[in-house]
This record gives sequence, C-alpha cells and structure tokens, in this order.
Amino acid sequence: MNQLKLSVKNGKPLKRTVVTVGSVRVGEDFVVIAGPCSVESEIQALETARAVKKAGANMLRGGAFKPRTSPYDFQGLGLKGLKILEMARRETGLPVVTEVTDPRDVSWVSEYADMLQIGTRNMQNFSLLKEVGKMNKPVLLKRGLYSTLKEWLSCAEYILAGGNSQVILCERGIRTFETYTRNTLDLSIVPAVKELSHLPIIVDPSHGTGRLSLIEPMSLASLAAGADGIMVEVHYNPAEALCDKDQALSPVLFSGLMDKLRHWQGALGTWTAEGAVAVSGRHPLALAAR
Amino acid sequence: MNQLKLSVKNGKPLKRTVVTVGSVRVGEDFVVIAGPCSVESEIQALETARAVKKAGANMLRGGAFKPRTSPYDFQGLGLKGLKILEMARRETGLPVVTEVTDPRDVSWVSEYADMLQIGTRNMQNFSLLKEVGKMNKPVLLKRGLYSTLKEWLSCAEYILAGGNSQVILCERGIRTFETYTRNTLDLSIVPAVKELSHLPIIVDPSHGTGRLSLIEPMSLASLAAGADGIMVEVHYNPAEALCDKDQALSPVLFSGLMDKLRHWQGALGTWTAEGAVAVSGRHPLALAAR
Amino acid sequence: MNQLKLSVKNGKPLKRTVVTVGSVRVGEDFVVIAGPCSVESEIQALETARAVKKAGANMLRGGAFKPRTSPYDFQGLGLKGLKILEMARRETGLPVVTEVTDPRDVSWVSEYADMLQIGTRNMQNFSLLKEVGKMNKPVLLKRGLYSTLKEWLSCAEYILAGGNSQVILCERGIRTFETYTRNTLDLSIVPAVKELSHLPIIVDPSHGTGRLSLIEPMSLASLAAGADGIMVEVHYNPAEALCDKDQALSPVLFSGLMDKLRHWQGALGTWTAEGAVAVSGRHPLALAAR
Amino acid sequence: MNQLKLSVKNGKPLKRTVVTVGSVRVGEDFVVIAGPCSVESEIQALETARAVKKAGANMLRGGAFKPRTSPYDFQGLGLKGLKILEMARRETGLPVVTEVTDPRDVSWVSEYADMLQIGTRNMQNFSLLKEVGKMNKPVLLKRGLYSTLKEWLSCAEYILAGGNSQVILCERGIRTFETYTRNTLDLSIVPAVKELSHLPIIVDPSHGTGRLSLIEPMSLASLAAGADGIMVEVHYNPAEALCDKDQALSPVLFSGLMDKLRHWQGALGTWTAEGAVAVSGRHPLALAAR
Repeated sequence: MNQLKLSVKNGKPLKRTVVTVGSVRVGEDFVVIAGPCSVESEIQALETARAVKKAGANMLRGGAFKPRTSPYDFQGLGLKGLKILEMARRETGLPVVTEVTDPRDVSWVSEYADMLQIGTRNMQNFSLLKEVGKMNKPVLLKRGLYSTLKEWLSCAEYILAGGNSQVILCERGIRTFETYTRNTLDLSIVPAVKELSHLPIIVDPSHGTGRLSLIEPMSLASLAAGADGIMVEVHYNPAEALCDKDQALSPVLFSGLMDKLRHWQGALGTWTAEGAVAVSGRHPLALAAR
Repeated sequence: MNQLKLSVKNGKPLKRTVVTVGSVRVGEDFVVIAGPCSVESEIQALETARAVKKAGANMLRGGAFKPRTSPYDFQGLGLKGLKILEMARRETGLPVVTEVTDPRDVSWVSEYADMLQIGTRNMQNFSLLKEVGKMNKPVLLKRGLYSTLKEWLSCAEYILAGGNSQVILCERGIRTFETYTRNTLDLSIVPAVKELSHLPIIVDPSHGTGRLSLIEPMSLASLAAGADGIMVEVHYNPAEALCDKDQALSPVLFSGLMDKLRHWQGALGTWTAEGAVAVSGRHPLALAAR
Repeated sequence: MNQLKLSVKNGKPLKRTVVTVGSVRVGEDFVVIAGPCSVESEIQALETARAVKKAGANMLRGGAFKPRTSPYDFQGLGLKGLKILEMARRETGLPVVTEVTDPRDVSWVSEYADMLQIGTRNMQNFSLLKEVGKMNKPVLLKRGLYSTLKEWLSCAEYILAGGNSQVILCERGIRTFETYTRNTLDLSIVPAVKELSHLPIIVDPSHGTGRLSLIEPMSLASLAAGADGIMVEVHYNPAEALCDKDQALSPVLFSGLMDKLRHWQGALGTWTAEGAVAVSGRHPLALAAR
Repeated sequence: MNQLKLSVKNGKPLKRTVVTVGSVRVGEDFVVIAGPCSVESEIQALETARAVKKAGANMLRGGAFKPRTSPYDFQGLGLKGLKILEMARRETGLPVVTEVTDPRDVSWVSEYADMLQIGTRNMQNFSLLKEVGKMNKPVLLKRGLYSTLKEWLSCAEYILAGGNSQVILCERGIRTFETYTRNTLDLSIVPAVKELSHLPIIVDPSHGTGRLSLIEPMSLASLAAGADGIMVEVHYNPAEALCDKDQALSPVLFSGLMDKLRHWQGALGTWTAEGAVAVSGRHPLALAAR
C-alpha cells in the first residue's frame, strides 16, 4: 500500500481527516444520513426529508441518477430530482448527498449537491473519479461489490491525487455466497480503514443487508465497530417506493433507530469519559471501539 | 427452509434455546469463551486458563486435535492435550470446549469435554455430525468458510435430528476477496439467525479477522449485533504460540477487552431497563440490539 | 508450495504419475468414468452400467454413501449399494469408483471399490485423508467447492504422506456468483496442475455445470485443456433419478458424447503425429494441449 | 431473463448475430484478435502488428486509454496511441479494437477504431453503455470481474436498446479465491451464452489466466467449448512491456498458437463434415462443440 501516498497513513501519525458537509463534520461526530433511495416526486422527497429531519438525521440522501442493472428499470428523475432535493434542503436545512454517474454531469450536479456520491458500480470508473477529484466538493466513495480494501483506497487516491481532499468512504456490503442478505456487510473494514487511513468511514446497512429487520442491529454494530456514521434508506411510504422498497425504513422505524443510537451514544459516551480514555476531537463511541 | 423442521422457527413462536455448559447458560447471558488455539503444553494451557479465568471468561477453549491445511504442520497433542484441559478445568472451574474431528473420537473425547466443537472445515462432515447428534453433550457448530445460512442450519439440523438439541452456532468469518483480514466476519448473520432460528449464536472475531487490532472492535460490534457471546484466542505468551500467533490476545489485552465488554453491558443494560424494553429471559444487550 | 514435497514437482523433472485402476491407466490414456450419481436399485445400476460399457466408458461410478446438504434427503443404499456395484463390475468388467465419507468405512469399502472417491465436502476431512493414505488403493480426490490449488494439493499431500501414491485429482467446479450454472468449472486448473504437479487430473462436467446442455461442450473443452479424462453422470432413465436428475445424461446422449470424444481423439491424434510432437507415453491430445 | 427482449432468445429461434468488423465476420469464422495490452510507442505497436498479421491474426487490439487500479500507473497514450493504431491498420489492413472508458470520448475515438471495447471495470458504467449504444460501430463488451450471466446480458441490452445491434461478448475471467491464476476463466459461459442469446462470444485467455503457460491450452479449450474466437495479448518484446508483461505472448509463441488452432480447425472441421452435422453458416468447430 506504500504507493498510496495520500490515502494511507504509512506509519505516519497523520491527523484524521474531518470532512465538512454544510455544518456537519464527518469524522468528528457520529453522523446519520437518511432519505429515499431515489427522488420520485416532490411530495415523496419533501415528506421523507421532513420525517428524517424531525427524527434527528444530519444529512439528506436521495438519488436523481440511478444506475440500474436493467435498462428498463426506473432511471431516476435527473435534473427534476435535483431541483426537488434543493427544495428539501431549503426547507429542512439538511445538506444533500446525491449520486453522480457520468463525468459530464459532475460540474452541474455540484451546483445542487453538498456532497457527491460515487456508487458501488462506479467505484472503478476512473474518468468519473478524476472528474470529482477536480471539484471543491466532498465526495462519498462507496466500496465496490467485489473490491478489496487496497482497491478501494486506490480509488480514493485518484480523487485525492486530483486535488480534492474531502473524501468519505462508505462500506455498503460486498457480494458473497450468502443469499439471505442482499450483500454481506463487512464491518471489520471499519477498524481496518481506521488503522490504515486517515479518511472517515461510514456504513450503509440498507444496501448492506437488504432486509428491514437487520438494519437496526447492524446500525448499532456499525457504531460499536467505530464507524463515523451510517447512511440509511427511509421512505415516507415504503410500500410505494419505486426501488429498494424491501429495505426502506418508514419514518416510525427510523425514529426508533435514532432513539436507540442516541441512547447508546449517551450511555457509552458517559462510560468512555469515566473510563479515562484520552479524548482528542473524535466521538466517544469510536474511541471506545478502538 | 421449510424442510428444516428442528432448527428453523418457520413462523412458530418458539422459545429460544438455552444451552447449558457446566453452569454457563448460553443464550441467556453474554458469554465469553477464551483460551489458546491449541493446547501446546501443561504450562501454556494452565497459565492461559488462569489468566482468562481471572479476567472473567466463562469458558475455556483449547484444541487437542487441530485440522491443519498442511500435513506437516503441528496437529495437536491429542489425548495428552485433553488431559491438560481436564487439569485446567479442575483448577479454574471453567467448562471446556474442544474440537473433535473424527467420528471415532466423539465418544471418548466427550469424557473430557463439556462442549464439542465442530470446526469450519468439518461443518459438512455429515458422519461427524451424525455422531455428535447421538451424544448428550453441547455442540458448538462453526460456520463453513463458504457456506450459506441455509447450509449451516441444515448441518445443525443433522445434529438436532439425531436427538441432540444442545447446539450453539458460531460465526467465524467467511472467505471473501478481501486480503487485509484473514476472513470476513459476517455479523449480519447474527440477527439473521435470531430471526430464523431459536438456536444461540456466538462470534469468533479471532479467526474472523486474523488481526489483533480488529478483535476488540469486532467483539463490541458482535455484542451490539445481538450475539450471545464471543470466542477469542488468548495465549499467555503469544510470541511463542505454535499456531495463529498473529491473532492471539495476551492476558493484558484480553483483560482490557473484558473491561470494555462489562462496561458496555452495564451502560447499555441500564439504559435498556429505563427504555422499558420487555425483558423475557435474555440478556439486555441482545434485546437492545433487536 | 515448497512444503509440498510429494505432490508438487518443485522444479524437479519428475515423471508423471500413472494410476492403474483395474486395467485402466489414468494419466496415460484419456479416460471416461460414467455412471449414476447414486446407486438406487439393482436394475438402475446394472442397466446404466451396461449402457456406459456399451458406449465405451472405461470405468463405472456410483455412490453408495451420499453426502447430502439436508438430513432428510436420500443418503444412499450403503452396503447394499456396494454389493450392487460389485455385480455391475462382475458383469461389465468395468472397475468401480465409489465415495467413502467416514474413516470407519475406508477399510471395508475398499473390499468393494477399485478406487475410493473423496467428495468435495470432504476434501479437507483430514481424518479421512489419513485413513485412505494408509490403503493400497487408488484415490480420486475432488477439489473443494471453495478451495485453492494449493489447498487441494495439500490434501493430496496428506494421502501421499501416508504412503499411498495413487492419487488422481478431479476438478468439479467451484462456487462463484454465477447462478446459471450449478458451479463454475475451472478448466485452467488442468494445465496448472500439469505444470505444478505430476498427478493425473480429470474433470467432472456434470457437477461442474449442473446443466445437461453444457456437459458435452465442457467435456470437449476438458480434453482440449489437457485433462486425463472426464467423469460424467449417466442414468438409464434420468427422469426417475433420485438425485441430480437435471445433470444425468441418458444412454443415448452419453453415447453421442463418446462418439465425439473418439472422433476428436482420432482427428487430433493424427495431427499431433504429423505435427511431430514428441510422444512419450501420454495421450496425444493432452500433449497437443500443452 | 424475460425482461431482456433484445439480447436473450426467450425461446424464439432467432438467427445468430454476425458482427462485421472491417472484413471480419465474428460469429461465423473463428476469429483471433491479437496485439499489445497498451500502445506504448510507434515501433512497439507497428512491430507487434506486423508480427500478429504475419502469424494470421484477424484483428489488432491495443489500448490507448488504460483503466488502472492505481492513479500512478501508466494510463495510456490517449490520442497519440490512437494515431499509432491507425498507422498499424493502414499498414497491415487489420481492423482495430481499442477500449473507450469515458462517454465524452466515444464519438471521436470511433473515428479511429473499427470496434470499441468496454472493459471489465466499466461493464456496468451505464452512461458509457448508453453512449456506445448510439453509435453505428461494433462493441466488444467484456464481462465484469464479479458479474453473473444475467447482469452481463443486461449490459448488452443497454447497448442494443440504444439502437446498436453490433455487440460481441468477451469472457475474460472472473474473480475467485484461486490465486495461482490471475482470474478464473469461466468457459462454461460460452455454451451458456450460445444457449440463451444470439450474440457472438469470444474468450480472452490472457487476462483470464494471467500466465503465459496457460494461454495455449485455454485457447484450444475455448475453441472446443464453441467460442467464436479469442483475444490474446502479444508484444514484440514482452520483457519491455509497460503493463501485463507476464501474460504477453512473444511473436514466436503466438505463431505457435496460431499453428495449433489452424491444425485443430482443419482436423475437426474435416471430421465435422464427415460426421454429417448440419452446417449452417457457422464455423465447424463451434458446431461440433454444441
């Protein structure tokens, strides 16, 4: 990994990177990003945004460009979707993260997004990585379905080498032989990233498991493993979702998850202080998990 | 999964199984099993047993028969190893779990062991499964390196169908393309097992990660995901270990891990009570994680 | 691989091993092993044996002990099955290969079998490997579902280190993400084995693909890749087969496959001679493929 | 697969697609595409082009844009490389296939290329697929490292749905746990594609194995499995290659491979005719393999 000069610590006592998205400091606070898989309509996006804001989410997610396995599946609303996300941000104040899939779109999508997401199928889309590397805009880089930590960090390196240092990694499950879950969430990558790199890492248990019942336990486990946050899919009415309906939390379920996360942070944070762990600008849970 | 009449709930509101090993109730309390990969000598096993007892472990692990990839690697001490484990149990009072690899050994190894372990490479050794199915002795069934949840539960079904209902599942990492970790610990299998089956499940972060630095965060994440316990490798002097030395905790590190686990249990248990979660005979953490 | 003193060439110009099963010399002639997945009845096994003999097969396969994922699936006829295989051998003169799954059975099953098969799920059943290593009987060692070449050769090493030098490797497909085929046949392992080891290697396209339509092209491709033979499932009436019915060739299809293999051998063998390739005791096709 | 209206046969007796590249008819003749991994210099590309032309290759390959895991590796010569390929085509008359990695490049790269290649890491780069779908130019679509047949055909569907019917599939090895080979060449996908789809399929044994010694046996096995051709890496001086030097054939080795392929085609083609197989516009070998 020595070749990866910018993304890997290589033994140097580098300061951990904190990526600022709007007023949210990822890498410092435990962050919750929530919202629909894709923006489907004004009412769907706004209602969902209000619900996640009310429950305490820190950032809004929503896709306007959807990379879909089949050309006949819903491909997203495009510019119209971005405009709806802008309305949601204006109303809720939540910073917006949205996916970009084409190097030609990077510049103008950046006008609407607070953070650009590179999806799992585009992790090694090097043209796209180079393009977001030229922007002054945070990038959320999802891990490829089949990729190793080294390959993932090499993709982060493409962005960093382009001059953009605001990269957040997102573990979203890898493909394995298990069929009960949609993918296999690799939580051991969280402390592994902390060990090797200075970049923040969050976890997406929605795509990682693909099962409603597993999202809460895996969110808590992500927190315990030291993640800097989670990203979850929420839909104001999951039964009507145009994509990923089986893994979309309702506002009620999301609110329950937020309650648990807060209680855990409270309970464990208190202990951490009592436990006299040196606190140096990071959230207490991640410290406790190291 | 409907075919799996004994291991799977199939919609019925079955009571969760509690497996009693000595005085330890697995499936009720969060259990910590610790000890060396293999029994190497009297002093190694006894010193390690004393250390894990002192730190608060509930059960002692140690291999007398070691399935090794190469025929030229250390294969375990056999009967001599079992006798050393017996001494360790007598002195510490800790119940002993040890691996059995041959159907011809099941009966006499049972004289020495409080729980029989079926290793990952033997998960689908059906002759061995049938043999332990005839015993009145708890069985710890590790997940195969490549196996799905359904295949794993089918192997548990072999044991249950033989008449032995005392089965504990153990997630120990599956083989993926990631090379930074030895295997990939699949923590989402923990709530998946809870959802489908009534059997207890514990996690082995030592084999699951193969890296000392990842054992603690993944132990805490296992607890958060709702596991009924963990199994970790401890060696009184890891530098001298004959196998798996890179993943063996020293007594000092193990003691630190136990402290953290206790604090988390305390902190979260308290909250759970306050949170008015219905408590029905299971440890508060697992409840919190559901 | 240097540790594998017996199975790997390690640069030495070792003579290729020829394993003699009855009058069949595996590693010299291109060999076809055929027969039912499992022995189901006298009429099924005898009719199938007659059919494969008539079509030109060199050896008969048939399982009396079936390792099955579920305990409720047909587990084989056991001793009764072995006696039926003995009848089939007496009538057709074909040597018999049958699977052994339990170290306690190795000795007495050897009384009935001309070659013992170690199945894919038992590749790393080291007790079983050690037991067949003590016998003076050829062993067909199938590759594990998930195993690397090194792990496979290490298992061959267990048998060789026990004193039994008559080992034949059998590629039968590995588990991948592809679902159209039952497994993924790894034909590149054939020339890889030839390069590293002196042991013969055959290919099982029935389990390797799990699809009737793919067996013929993959048999021809195995021959082209330099394999020492193939093993295919044939059933005198596939619609009635108790296991693997979707991949069992009828006698008519098998006979057609044999015709093609013979023609290819004729056509290519002729060319090989013309092509002035040095022929040194191996079948011309494998030479051509090197 | 029913959703895939254009790429899948769905039971209809569709005529097989023949894709014409220059004067080469892929899907009718067994085609050999050869050339360097990347265009490195005028002399390297021209010398290699002359060598593969002389040995009988039908098409020239060569990369001007190289998707590389690390941003610090050689990324290709870009336009300069395309101009060199143009010179090579002018001199040798061989049609040229070259990779395109960015939707912005598709239009102008098409001015230089006779066929556009979509690389394995871009198989699911849907923006790129849509862009080549608008062109009137043959497309060589490599299979993703981890992708299933269904996912692969869905990507072909993106191109076909855009109006471009000239798609050739290329199997180039999938990622498995085997480490001896760079990837695992899945030859069973060849007859599987023939069964499901009407599109031609070729095999790349260079990337598929990553080992010089395995390219020839796997080329012959590809032919035997019914492939419509192969694509291999050749370098006029492999020791100096800037990428993939371990898998680049020298002109001498490539010439030897071509001799074997021709002899096999001759020998088997003759037999096929004698064997009275109905010949309907496809090369005799592929027919023999069905």
